[in-house]
Amino acid sequence: GVTELGSNETHYSDDYDPSVLETFVNKHPQNDYLVTFDGYEFTSLCPKTGQPDFANVFISYIPTEKMVESKSLKLYLFSFRNHGDFHEDCMNIILDDLYKLMNPKYIEVLGLFTPRGGISIYPFVNRVNPAFETEELSNLAFQRKLHFLGNVQSYGRAIR
Amino acid sequence: GVTELGSNETHYSDDYDPSVLETFVNKHPQNDYLVTFDGYEFTSLCPKTGQPDFANVFISYIPTEKMVESKSLKLYLFSFRNHGDFHEDCMNIILDDLYKLMNPKYIEVLGLFTPRGGISIYPFVNRVNPAFETEELSNLAFQRKLHFLGNVQSYGRAIR
Amino acid sequence: GVTELGSNETHYSDDYDPSVLETFVNKHPQNDYLVTFDGYEFTSLCPKTGQPDFANVFISYIPTEKMVESKSLKLYLFSFRNHGDFHEDCMNIILDDLYKLMNPKYIEVLGLFTPRGGISIYPFVNRVNPAFETEELSNLAFQRKLHFLGNVQSYGRAIR
Amino acid sequence: GVTELGSNETHYSDDYDPSVLETFVNKHPQNDYLVTFDGYEFTSLCPKTGQPDFANVFISYIPTEKMVESKSLKLYLFSFRNHGDFHEDCMNIILDDLYKLMNPKYIEVLGLFTPRGGISIYPFVNRVNPAFETEELSNLAFQRKLHFLGNVQSYGRAIR
Amino acid sequence: GVTELGSNETHYSDDYDPSVLETFVNKHPQNDYLVTFDGYEFTSLCPKTGQPDFANVFISYIPTEKMVESKSLKLYLFSFRNHGDFHEDCMNIILDDLYKLMNPKYIEVLGLFTPRGGISIYPFVNRVNPAFETEELSNLAFQRKLHFLGNVQSYGRAIR
Amino acid sequence: GVTELGSNETHYSDDYDPSVLETFVNKHPQNDYLVTFDGYEFTSLCPKTGQPDFANVFISYIPTEKMVESKSLKLYLFSFRNHGDFHEDCMNIILDDLYKLMNPKYIEVLGLFTPRGGISIYPFVNRVNPAFETEELSNLAFQRKLHFLGNVQSYGRAIR
Amino acid sequence: GVTELGSNETHYSDDYDPSVLETFVNKHPQNDYLVTFDGYEFTSLCPKTGQPDFANVFISYIPTEKMVESKSLKLYLFSFRNHGDFHEDCMNIILDDLYKLMNPKYIEVLGLFTPRGGISIYPFVNRVNPAFETEELSNLAFQRKLHFLGNVQSYGRAIR
Amino acid sequence: GVTELGSNETHYSDDYDPSVLETFVNKHPQNDYLVTFDGYEFTSLCPKTGQPDFANVFISYIPTEKMVESKSLKLYLFSFRNHGDFHEDCMNIILDDLYKLMNPKYIEVLGLFTPRGGISIYPFVNRVNPAFETEELSNLAFQRKLHFLGNVQSYGRAIR
Amino acid sequence: GVTELGSNETHYSDDYDPSVLETFVNKHPQNDYLVTFDGYEFTSLCPKTGQPDFANVFISYIPTEKMVESKSLKLYLFSFRNHGDFHEDCMNIILDDLYKLMNPKYIEVLGLFTPRGGISIYPFVNRVNPAFETEELSNLAFQRKLHFLGNVQSYGRAIR
Amino acid sequence: GVTELGSNETHYSDDYDPSVLETFVNKHPQNDYLVTFDGYEFTSLCPKTGQPDFANVFISYIPTEKMVESKSLKLYLFSFRNHGDFHEDCMNIILDDLYKLMNPKYIEVLGLFTPRGGISIYPFVNRVNPAFETEELSNLAFQRKLHFLGNVQSYGRAIR
Ligand SMILES: [Ca+2]
Ligand SMILES: [Ca+2]
Ligand SMILES: [Ca+2]
Ligand SMILES: [Ca+2]
Ligand SMILES: [Ca+2]
Ligand SMILES: [Ca+2]
Ligand SMILES: [Ca+2]
Ligand SMILES: [Ca+2]
Ligand SMILES: [Ca+2]
Ligand SMILES: [Ca+2]
Ligand SMILES: [Ca+2]
Ligand SMILES: [Ca+2]
Ligand SMILES: [Ca+2]
Ligand SMILES: [Ca+2]
Ligand SMILES: [Ca+2]
Ligand SMILES: [Ca+2]
Repeated sequence: GVTELGSNETHYSDDYDPSVLETFVNKHPQNDYLVTFDGYEFTSLCPKTGQPDFANVFISYIPTEKMVESKSLKLYLFSFRNHGDFHEDCMNIILDDLYKLMNPKYIEVLGLFTPRGGISIYPFVNRVNPAFETEELSNLAFQRKLHFLGNVQSYGRAIR
Repeated sequence: GVTELGSNETHYSDDYDPSVLETFVNKHPQNDYLVTFDGYEFTSLCPKTGQPDFANVFISYIPTEKMVESKSLKLYLFSFRNHGDFHEDCMNIILDDLYKLMNPKYIEVLGLFTPRGGISIYPFVNRVNPAFETEELSNLAFQRKLHFLGNVQSYGRAIR
Repeated sequence: GVTELGSNETHYSDDYDPSVLETFVNKHPQNDYLVTFDGYEFTSLCPKTGQPDFANVFISYIPTEKMVESKSLKLYLFSFRNHGDFHEDCMNIILDDLYKLMNPKYIEVLGLFTPRGGISIYPFVNRVNPAFETEELSNLAFQRKLHFLGNVQSYGRAIR
Repeated sequence: GVTELGSNETHYSDDYDPSVLETFVNKHPQNDYLVTFDGYEFTSLCPKTGQPDFANVFISYIPTEKMVESKSLKLYLFSFRNHGDFHEDCMNIILDDLYKLMNPKYIEVLGLFTPRGGISIYPFVNRVNPAFETEELSNLAFQRKLHFLGNVQSYGRAIR
Repeated sequence: GVTELGSNETHYSDDYDPSVLETFVNKHPQNDYLVTFDGYEFTSLCPKTGQPDFANVFISYIPTEKMVESKSLKLYLFSFRNHGDFHEDCMNIILDDLYKLMNPKYIEVLGLFTPRGGISIYPFVNRVNPAFETEELSNLAFQRKLHFLGNVQSYGRAIR
Repeated sequence: GVTELGSNETHYSDDYDPSVLETFVNKHPQNDYLVTFDGYEFTSLCPKTGQPDFANVFISYIPTEKMVESKSLKLYLFSFRNHGDFHEDCMNIILDDLYKLMNPKYIEVLGLFTPRGGISIYPFVNRVNPAFETEELSNLAFQRKLHFLGNVQSYGRAIR
Repeated sequence: GVTELGSNETHYSDDYDPSVLETFVNKHPQNDYLVTFDGYEFTSLCPKTGQPDFANVFISYIPTEKMVESKSLKLYLFSFRNHGDFHEDCMNIILDDLYKLMNPKYIEVLGLFTPRGGISIYPFVNRVNPAFETEELSNLAFQRKLHFLGNVQSYGRAIR
Repeated sequence: GVTELGSNETHYSDDYDPSVLETFVNKHPQNDYLVTFDGYEFTSLCPKTGQPDFANVFISYIPTEKMVESKSLKLYLFSFRNHGDFHEDCMNIILDDLYKLMNPKYIEVLGLFTPRGGISIYPFVNRVNPAFETEELSNLAFQRKLHFLGNVQSYGRAIR
Repeated sequence: GVTELGSNETHYSDDYDPSVLETFVNKHPQNDYLVTFDGYEFTSLCPKTGQPDFANVFISYIPTEKMVESKSLKLYLFSFRNHGDFHEDCMNIILDDLYKLMNPKYIEVLGLFTPRGGISIYPFVNRVNPAFETEELSNLAFQRKLHFLGNVQSYGRAIR
Repeated sequence: GVTELGSNETHYSDDYDPSVLETFVNKHPQNDYLVTFDGYEFTSLCPKTGQPDFANVFISYIPTEKMVESKSLKLYLFSFRNHGDFHEDCMNIILDDLYKLMNPKYIEVLGLFTPRGGISIYPFVNRVNPAFETEELSNLAFQRKLHFLGNVQSYGRAIR
């Protein structure tokens, strides 16, 4: 009986692969809709040492016409598993790929990495889409930086 | 003696049913009154897989003349139990139904869904009533988006 | 020996009784002074079912000339013990009574009620005194609504 | 619409009333079954000062033929609301009443009372039914005392 | 793109269904192996009121030759979703079904149910397999009851 | 108005004073009754430096005929406020005084002191009454030492 | 051996004594420097009942030329130990004394007092130095009041 | 500058590789010495779906003559990164490999895996070395199973 | 085997040494990129008593062309280990050194020091680079001060 | 003013130095007295890499005639600051030194070290004094090992 359950043919990429990302149509474009993904099983490789790195990655955005499908996002994040890049670069790459995919009004990516040698690194990147830029969205992007800084003393425990 | 306790004739709907919602009169319309409901037993079905989803749903609003009665709200949220819709759509539907019911000055709905495959989704929707729109309410709606984003790293533990 | 300790003649009211409230003189009127009371043993009765309700009630204000004495406030809150009123009405009544008593520049009342049927209700009311209204106080009243909304996902655990 | 919801005719006693307790039949008497009730809205009156006291009351037992019905237990605990007795006596009375009602193999009652004057009192009472006494149950009663003592430093935060 | 991801043909039962349970072979029968499942999305219906109940269900066992497959266990627990039974009965039924399925040396089931009317119920059932009974396993079953009782004051927060 | 509330004539001692302790009669001597006091506002003086020390003091006992009255215990603990003695000695003195007062079957005193120079001290003392010594009580005293040791890594956060 | 360690000749005052406060020179006057003291062992006496009160006192300021030396601040806070004043007055006195001592650009004092009779009081006082007043500092003083109010529901657990 | 820091030539295996494990000599064989490793970055692949699994792995042992070197243990755990095996098998394999490596008196391995579909799996394996078996060690192995079961309700939050 | 692992030739300075700091090129200068370091193993010496001090140091900045390499930052922070300077001075020195190294748009340093004598000190310093000063960055620097003040009551537990 | 406060002539050793340890006389030798030290600022050097290590060290013992003076213990623990030894060796050395100093009935040392490369090491050592060995003390030493193992999954968060 059990083997039937295993007939899951999802393909897990061997390396970083943005082509696995898929979208679906936003049915509520009239709203300033926010969606957040809490990806707490992110892992990549250090490009210098080959050592695995681990992070809790948070992705938030305001959609326009397209939204990222969550299972494809899972596969995309998993594709970093055997990929070597610095913490900061991984977060920028994720932001870039999702920005290209969805053309969102606003997007941000935050990575809370577990410590190495008594120090943890937490990169935060965000971007306002120039095609939709308003004073409000610019302010939102600015305020989000503030919020990130305002919470740094709580991240250490959050990623334990 | 126990059987008498069971004569509770509340009807629980078999499927999504906004008609169970009831209202009562706001006795304090002169105040900018806020009411929040913390519905931590929300469950619906995934429209693609049929798998149950679970969430903590937060609903907040500023009333005008009518307020939603809490027991009817409970029945309404329970009516999603055998209903299939995406996380994002459920939150939008709740917002729409309550908006129609109460004509509030402001309303917001937040869903903290438990993870699937190492990723959690948290949709947040809010709306200002154009008939009561002020610069203050517009600002409130904007600031609420910020607050939502500013707390994402704490939701994972909150829904455990 | 012990019986002497019991000669505490404080009177506990049988029902809601604002007349037990007492004040003392604010010795620091030149400051925009804030005082908060955290009343975590509030209980009242549901007017429809007679069932007891429990809440953590927070009261904050900026005094003018008079301040509420804390022991009399305790007696006042205890006077709701056998009194039947809805969650929202109890919070409004407390705000009204203390406003009349102290004529404060600003006052707010927040009630975190324990759940019934998987839903908790959290009402929040505040008021700026028109006689002292400034742009700053209006802003404070607005910002306080925002703060209340921004914390709703943490209240459930706080009242456990 | 709302008034129909209010037709809940549950009677809430004016004073301590063990007659509200009801039982149902244990369908699994072959098991050493354990049931625990976590009653976190207990309140009574201090017999000396009339001041309300608040506690989190935990009741656990191993059934024989009868089990206490949970809604009737709620009504029973609520009947202490206007009743005056010391912390220790309340816990003993609850144990006695439930013992008489159910004739359990084992029963225990623990009360975590909120502080008065910087000191909290936590009474713990348990009893083995002589008709069912075994070395194992005697040991269980003894070990439960140990467990109670072993956790005292965590109760203060638990009742906040 | 997305629709392909949806071709998940897992069947979710309309009602309680132990036939979905599947097993696989224990590859380490020489060890006193322990496996625990933490099922934090359990929901059933109250047989008297039709109201949904929610619980965190913990299942632990020592295998002999067969082990329960985790995805089939998920489907089994989900089959209680539209099934009406008391808290205590649900936990006993789960124990019985898994005992029959796996013939384990030892098995236990614990349910932490969310509160109704200010009271939570936590049933705990366990069983030693007579075919494998030893003094050690009997002691384990006894000690497990003790552990359950010793932790009751922490469950309330755990299920929030 | 307010001054009347102040007519509390409780006397607070200038120095350590066991004579303030009072007792009342144990109405349940047939039970092995446990009572715990959580005194989280204990402060004394260091006999060498005069510097105030702060602790959370836990007192637990099994009564015989007399029980310590809680308000008198509060006054007794407060009488250490201007008294100089080492951490270890304070805990022993409290145990001795209460033992003399109540002649309990068992008593223990635990002090969780706040740190000085990066180190905290936690003394634990207990005693079985020889007049009531049983194998069970001796075992309890031994097990209590174990429990104390088993929790040391949690005390630091508990006293913050 | 040990007695040599005891030759600590620090003088602890018998009563409230601002003369123990000492300052040192701010080496970074070009920065808008912030310093916070977390004094979690504050205790004073209630002027009406003589009962000791306990608080966690937070002091924050932006220095000009002088900064308070931390050990002298410790002695100053300890001098309230046998001094009788209301919660609100103690916090104002501390603010006044430190303001006179340091002539800071901005200063604030917050007291989180442990509960009495189920109610806790939390006073918050702050002041901008008129000699250095800017729109930014006025805004800071205003925003700090908001922050204080926005956190009241978390203080109860913080002081346990 | 930076590139020099990168000259870390540690080799990270492409697949499961027990040959990376290294030992050093136990300098305290006369003690019943315990060493615990808390490996909170464990990840492997599901053999059926290829999906990555994540766990917090705890390894504890009593050494005889050899002890596992911690950096080599890190490399060993990392070698599961691209290896497919069930949760239960991974934990058994780790126990087997370390047992062969060190010939310890006692060893245990616990895996707290993150949830899949609302269920988490926690396997626990331990073994007493027959060459060193005593009644005490057998008891320890038994008690450790009990401890594992007694903590299951806390693991869910621990791995978030 | 093990000794090969030890051939780590990293040099740890005997005293404060900013020359160990290294940089790498910012690959994303078009973004207002934020990077935070959570250095929770900081220790220095008190210049007056020689006593070690311990802190959790948080460093955040917006890069221009150069970024600090994390391993060199670790060595730099470790170089304070045998260096004597006041809490406030250490934080200023770190800010100055990193500002010189990277010429960032914005930088801040926060130190959460463990208590001495019942008082903890938390210095916070930040700076906007005049070459990049905008209204937004000035506002950010101001708002960061507010955030620091708004969190002081949570730091005590964070550093335990 | 301030400089006088600095005349603290405590000597801090440059390297590991057990000669700083001092004792005082146990005034309660008739009791099985327990004393625990929670030293949360322990730091040493890795003998292979020179990298600083950090730990929370817990020391517990039952005294005979002599007790370690706490300030001298602080100096002793600080003497490891520039000393290179493995985690396991440091804990053994501390146990040996304190055993020689005090000749205790029982002593134990536990070190919770912060992680390196995603793994934390927690050594635990204890010893019964043969001159005072009883069945009870042997049992205590055994049970303490069990307790240590039973808590390993909580240490990671405790040392953050
Ligand atoms: Ca974790
Ligand atoms: Ca939850
Ligand atoms: Ca939960
Ligand atoms: Ca509470
Ligand atoms: Ca509570
Ligand atoms: Ca509570
Ligand atoms: Ca929850
Ligand atoms: Ca929950
Ligand atoms: Ca505290
Ligand atoms: Ca405390
Ligand atoms: Ca505290
Ligand atoms: Ca985590
Ligand atoms: Ca985690
Ligand atoms: Ca820390
Ligand atoms: Ca710590
Ligand atoms: Ca820490």
